[in-house]
Amino acid sequence: MASTPVKLPFSAVAYDNAALRLLDQTKLPVELTYLTLTDYREVIEAIQRLAVRGAPAIGIAGAYAVVLAAQYPPAGESMSAVTLLRVIDEIERARPTAINLAWALNRQREIVKGLAGALDVSDVALLRREADAILREDEEMCARIGEYGAALVPEGATILTHCNTGALATGGIGTALGVIYTVHAQGKGVRVFADETRPLLQGARLTAWELQRAGVDVTLIVDSVAGMLLAQGKISLAIVGADRITRNGDTVNKIGTYGLATLCAAHNTPFYVAAPESTFDHSMATGAECVIEERSPLEVTEGFGKRTAPQGVKVYSPAFDITPKRLITAYITDRGILSGGRRS
Amino acid sequence: MASTPVKLPFSAVAYDNAALRLLDQTKLPVELTYLTLTDYREVIEAIQRLAVRGAPAIGIAGAYAVVLAAQYPPAGESMSAVTLLRVIDEIERARPTAINLAWALNRQREIVKGLAGALDVSDVALLRREADAILREDEEMCARIGEYGAALVPEGATILTHCNTGALATGGIGTALGVIYTVHAQGKGVRVFADETRPLLQGARLTAWELQRAGVDVTLIVDSVAGMLLAQGKISLAIVGADRITRNGDTVNKIGTYGLATLCAAHNTPFYVAAPESTFDHSMATGAECVIEERSPLEVTEGFGKRTAPQGVKVYSPAFDITPKRLITAYITDRGILSGGRRS
Repeated sequence: MASTPVKLPFSAVAYDNAALRLLDQTKLPVELTYLTLTDYREVIEAIQRLAVRGAPAIGIAGAYAVVLAAQYPPAGESMSAVTLLRVIDEIERARPTAINLAWALNRQREIVKGLAGALDVSDVALLRREADAILREDEEMCARIGEYGAALVPEGATILTHCNTGALATGGIGTALGVIYTVHAQGKGVRVFADETRPLLQGARLTAWELQRAGVDVTLIVDSVAGMLLAQGKISLAIVGADRITRNGDTVNKIGTYGLATLCAAHNTPFYVAAPESTFDHSMATGAECVIEERSPLEVTEGFGKRTAPQGVKVYSPAFDITPKRLITAYITDRGILSGGRRS
Repeated sequence: MASTPVKLPFSAVAYDNAALRLLDQTKLPVELTYLTLTDYREVIEAIQRLAVRGAPAIGIAGAYAVVLAAQYPPAGESMSAVTLLRVIDEIERARPTAINLAWALNRQREIVKGLAGALDVSDVALLRREADAILREDEEMCARIGEYGAALVPEGATILTHCNTGALATGGIGTALGVIYTVHAQGKGVRVFADETRPLLQGARLTAWELQRAGVDVTLIVDSVAGMLLAQGKISLAIVGADRITRNGDTVNKIGTYGLATLCAAHNTPFYVAAPESTFDHSMATGAECVIEERSPLEVTEGFGKRTAPQGVKVYSPAFDITPKRLITAYITDRGILSGGRRS
């Protein structure tokens, strides 16, 4: 499994020369800059100002922030296990709703609980090993999704994708984009249409950037072009990621996913959801139980630094929508392919 | 017919106190400013910089520009019929592809051809009468579309619309928005969701502005929210305008119309096209004959004065798409309702 080597010319998060290196995503798509951080408080700041984003990437950055705190205690402090547990709480507060951050920090917490007194070099090594493991597991998860998904993509396919589910969001090659990178590395000669993904334009700012950088043939479209492309038979299949998948297969993902899945069904075009097993939320029976976050109206009315709608206008801006299993051809997971509910 | 009086607190184009008054649409949605023009060359400039836009409104502005040229000849020139014909050509070049401009100017050309020598006050009055007629016919056309369409809209309906087809684009209350203004005036208590309409955001900048100004309950959404609203049963019907309708009923309209019509069909929600008879192009058998203009990639990659996509990325940005008759419940015209091809 995961036999296709994919080499990308950038990575969102890495640990090199005893420092954390983050690709500063606030500078994209205009420039590629890396931050080299040795103070865990800089990592907190980077998480808060979205220099690093995407749930898995944030978790990995948080795990390394713990390593940095142990290795380079702030001036005047000696780092004990007790202090480090407080630091972990502090890191967790950087983005309280990020599930992967809490999960990765819990793994470091378990390590720290086994330590005592002032931390030494071997303790730092233990924490480093755990952070490396979290990163490596994420890389492998992405590679497996890529490999399983690649089997579903024919030679020369034209693939439609929405939002960003790529290397910028993970420690590896991404989920939906992981499939694209894998078929690209296999020489299948695929072509990608990327939805710009309003309101926050992750498709334009991030997906188009990373696919272009990786040498994948990518064309950017505004979200409402997808229907026309499907009608013209120009799309072979669509692949998106998922934020959460409930027991009945309801897929919570970026706003616009449901409309795209409906359009794919109307045009007999396969629609795939690529997501790790950890996205399946067995505690929820259906997507109806999921509270859909609403985004700030300002992202719609002045999302580009300029007012583009009248003062005081009402805005409805849900962050996610719910795509039922009947519209999904298959789920591509790190443990294999699961059938969806589409009949054609 | 057209018995519902609709009073709007603004108009795109009017002739008052021997001057042309244009609502400066380049200042929307931030401020409401009127231009008062007496020099036809200022009207040309206003047309060119899109201070006035929308095919019918441009035609009306052009017709009044001819009146201004006859009434206020540029300093040092005496205005003869021969000179005025040259001025009409000059006005026509302001937006060469605007069909309504050429059409309105041809009406003025016919008047001028019946004149001779230096123009006098009675000649100006003739031209003024023709421009007034063009404006009044457009107002009446909008009012009739509004009245016919209103019969299709139930009490308390929630209406989805796309792009701008309103009072800002016409001499009257608009086409799709004309229907909305009419049911609003009838006290039907309707509510509107307006697609922002990427790339140029006519829905955010213009539709949301004019509906808000007219006291209609309007909520702005990014284009990809429509599917979710339809799935939730929150939309009673959708109404859009049309740029051209071919003999088989194919409707060429703003990009995104086809996707919206497909989503409405998938959710058994009526989808109406509101357009005057003059939009029906009997010279074209199907929409496939229509060349679809592509917009500048810059509208997608830096549409708001800020780069939001990587340098050099490919962009596909068609201005229009084609919606077949089978997805249209009915066409609302100024001569009555024509059935579409939707079965449900």
